[in-house]
Amino acid sequence: MTSTRAVPPGVSAAMLDEALLRMARIVGDGALLTTDEAVAEFRDPYTFAGWEQYLPSAVVQPSTVEQVQAIVRIAGELGVPLWTTSQGRNNGYGGSAPRVSGSVVVNLRRMNRVLEVSEEHAYAVVEPGVSFFDLYEAVRGAGHRLWISTPDLGWGSVVGNTLDHGFGFTVNGDHVGAQCGMEVVLADGSLLRTGMGAMEGNRAWHVHKRGFGPSADGLFMQSNLGIVTRMGVWLMPEPEAYCAGWIRSRRHDDLGPIVDALRPLVLDRTINGYPTVWYAQAFAAMRSVRSDWYTGDGPLPDEVFSAMVDAYGIGRWNVRIPITGRREVVEAQWRAVERAAAQIPGAWTERRLYPGDVRPEDVDPGDQVPAGIPGLHLLQRMGWFGGVGGHVGFSPIAPLSGANAVELDGLVRGALAERGLDYNAAFILNPRAVVLTALMFFDTGDEAQAQAAFDVCKHLVREAARRGFGEYRAHLDFMDLVAEQYAFGDHAQRRFNERLKDALDPAGVLSPGKQGIWPGGGRTADS
Amino acid sequence: MTSTRAVPPGVSAAMLDEALLRMARIVGDGALLTTDEAVAEFRDPYTFAGWEQYLPSAVVQPSTVEQVQAIVRIAGELGVPLWTTSQGRNNGYGGSAPRVSGSVVVNLRRMNRVLEVSEEHAYAVVEPGVSFFDLYEAVRGAGHRLWISTPDLGWGSVVGNTLDHGFGFTVNGDHVGAQCGMEVVLADGSLLRTGMGAMEGNRAWHVHKRGFGPSADGLFMQSNLGIVTRMGVWLMPEPEAYCAGWIRSRRHDDLGPIVDALRPLVLDRTINGYPTVWYAQAFAAMRSVRSDWYTGDGPLPDEVFSAMVDAYGIGRWNVRIPITGRREVVEAQWRAVERAAAQIPGAWTERRLYPGDVRPEDVDPGDQVPAGIPGLHLLQRMGWFGGVGGHVGFSPIAPLSGANAVELDGLVRGALAERGLDYNAAFILNPRAVVLTALMFFDTGDEAQAQAAFDVCKHLVREAARRGFGEYRAHLDFMDLVAEQYAFGDHAQRRFNERLKDALDPAGVLSPGKQGIWPGGGRTADS
Repeated sequence: MTSTRAVPPGVSAAMLDEALLRMARIVGDGALLTTDEAVAEFRDPYTFAGWEQYLPSAVVQPSTVEQVQAIVRIAGELGVPLWTTSQGRNNGYGGSAPRVSGSVVVNLRRMNRVLEVSEEHAYAVVEPGVSFFDLYEAVRGAGHRLWISTPDLGWGSVVGNTLDHGFGFTVNGDHVGAQCGMEVVLADGSLLRTGMGAMEGNRAWHVHKRGFGPSADGLFMQSNLGIVTRMGVWLMPEPEAYCAGWIRSRRHDDLGPIVDALRPLVLDRTINGYPTVWYAQAFAAMRSVRSDWYTGDGPLPDEVFSAMVDAYGIGRWNVRIPITGRREVVEAQWRAVERAAAQIPGAWTERRLYPGDVRPEDVDPGDQVPAGIPGLHLLQRMGWFGGVGGHVGFSPIAPLSGANAVELDGLVRGALAERGLDYNAAFILNPRAVVLTALMFFDTGDEAQAQAAFDVCKHLVREAARRGFGEYRAHLDFMDLVAEQYAFGDHAQRRFNERLKDALDPAGVLSPGKQGIWPGGGRTADS
Repeated sequence: MTSTRAVPPGVSAAMLDEALLRMARIVGDGALLTTDEAVAEFRDPYTFAGWEQYLPSAVVQPSTVEQVQAIVRIAGELGVPLWTTSQGRNNGYGGSAPRVSGSVVVNLRRMNRVLEVSEEHAYAVVEPGVSFFDLYEAVRGAGHRLWISTPDLGWGSVVGNTLDHGFGFTVNGDHVGAQCGMEVVLADGSLLRTGMGAMEGNRAWHVHKRGFGPSADGLFMQSNLGIVTRMGVWLMPEPEAYCAGWIRSRRHDDLGPIVDALRPLVLDRTINGYPTVWYAQAFAAMRSVRSDWYTGDGPLPDEVFSAMVDAYGIGRWNVRIPITGRREVVEAQWRAVERAAAQIPGAWTERRLYPGDVRPEDVDPGDQVPAGIPGLHLLQRMGWFGGVGGHVGFSPIAPLSGANAVELDGLVRGALAERGLDYNAAFILNPRAVVLTALMFFDTGDEAQAQAAFDVCKHLVREAARRGFGEYRAHLDFMDLVAEQYAFGDHAQRRFNERLKDALDPAGVLSPGKQGIWPGGGRTADS
């Protein structure tokens, strides 16, 4: 153990040592990381010079639910704050780093078992350390005729992504909607099973979402009220056919028409996956770096952007449209998409039709993720500015309409341009809502640029709220700020969450500050 | 005010009078019902001789959220228990009657405004007094090209049905799944808005289900933690076509093959509505009474049942299969259903294809409900035994398979036969689960028969739990018994619910005993 260790506020170094010693006895020495080198991996991955916040004191990696229960009890007795992460790959939002410096990160990567796969009822039961790659292997690798849903990067935890309200792109792309049945360790170390799982031996735990009485599942998402140690996740039966459709347009002004043309088809599930409208920058950044195109200051000039788009033969806007089902049904649905696309001034369409049992290597890389084939292609974007690439995410949600998409696009684009940052965004189309995920890229070696990326996010959080848009997740650095925008009824939501926090975690040791929820007493960030 | 009024345990008659006096000042005299005659309507509608439980002391009918807040505050100050109902039409489970005799029923029928209908995003915002008839009028009556989802009886509250985990039969048939955004009065009289509604002026309150941080919506369903005063409900765009399909079979043994043949089509949403497998008794009871067929004792003999089925030209099993969408898609989906039906030994199919804008009077009565056209046809079943018909529901859930459906069918049928009661059931097919709704009919004038119906339910609750099946709702008279079956972790769920109850409603005035959740202190039923 080293002496540079961060210590949480209100806890003595001796007390922290005592907690770590007791935790080591529970998990074994190999599963408690305390050296600077080992702990560094669990800091914010895009830490830049001058950034000395959100530092873990140590990392404990339990491998069983009993170990999680014991760790929680130790923390409660000694008042040592914990911070739970599953894979901890949530990089645009802080990775594994804790909100309060000195917290012990409870990292669940070693709880990585796929406990069950049901082909008959199309679900799996996973522990929090299971990544999308792991789940894919356990499902398709094992020959089950099922598809999983994965976000664009497959290394994250299925549980972690779901608990943070993540999205994929199959019919189960709303990952919260595809969650069914949890096991949760509460702050007192006791174990709760939600839904039908509250009945010992119930057969329907992972096929029906609710039991008898109130449903608590939502309480354990984006939350610090418990540690989820097991979760049911719905899969989809392997479809007969998969239509990977694309609409592209080189016209900047086509964003609105694209969203409006697709809105009725997404709403009535003619498009039964989750379409994504990609700004071309995402593709360019995967295949090149900024200096290949431009070495000047300020945002990329429009004529440079145009040349880049032309060079790759893509659109400024590129809409990935997944449709799955029986072949004749999919064909009919795609015809409806083509009719809609014909209303968009600058649009053209492409599509590839695959059989549902296609081998992953026979699927175009751009079509893999919506077919539930996990990958890491998008990681290649990170080095856009050269140096070690970092990014931070700004993620507001709006009712699904062209006007809202255009308003959000203009808001973010303008704010970035003022700060000389490039615009990069994707819009995920839900049946009734559009989710903007804007990634602000920066070179972690450039402190001013990194700071500008965080500043623009904070500016946008306030400005979006003023216009009636809220974020659905946030980086550690502005979780409090985002929570503050949800202020109806003199912060009724915050007070409600605090009452639950005090009732369920009176010692306040589970992930204090997560999503702006603080334990009793100070009720403010102190680190 | 009359002197026969029930008084809640631990409350003096004077205190109750004081509460009622203050409530009358809030809502006006006309909205506080205290006479025996007026209050009787809010008792269990199938009260039979010898049944002196679950008696309201009075009924208060607020018309605004501010009135609800004031009522809750009065109750909290004086310790008078309330019992919330919306329409209070939940007749097979106790109607408007409170768990604790002497409770003041807060009936929300006068809060009956449809606050918004969005055709663009296919949702409505309703107060709890809005019935399915009301919503239908506000949507289709007003010319919106949207369909609502309704359960088989349309007089119930949209909010009440949703909060009690009710089902309809369109693509939005899982009513909890179609809920989006709530306003809730808490026990301290404060107001909470869930999801994006926690941000004042947020545009996405009713189009996106979650905000920032934990989601509380599930806490207010089947619950006594708050009073929901406003709710968003998702509708569906009027489809191009509606295929009302039926599969019928006269073979008793076809239940298993029916469920197994349909399972993959429900799972992959080829059948995108919620199919229902009706036992023929439901139809016979709508058109006749028992004595038309048989006047002997014991359950209806099989040969009599066969003759009845033949007389109506229906099956013993009759599966209602709703499919909606583009005409060519619906046609392709129905062909898949026909191929599946060909595997069922005794089955034949029927279908009617309607345009989505069909006038309700042009839809066959049996096809109306799955098209979101509310009705009361099923009410005609109630008088099966003659006299004033009552019924009580037994509603377990199982993974969707023929074997589970057959097991539940046999379990219920056997238990009823032992007690001389007729079998009556419908199975609602969810993508991964089957919900059995078995109604035990009785003549309210026949105390022994009524008691037998309740006894068989209680027997079945225990026996089902032993086999791994849990109920999804329950009559007042066995809410505690059902909750008791959810006993994992030494009743971890109950203890969790009690901690929430104590934190959010320390005076314990909101619907004590609902779903087996009791406020601090006794933690047992006392009435």
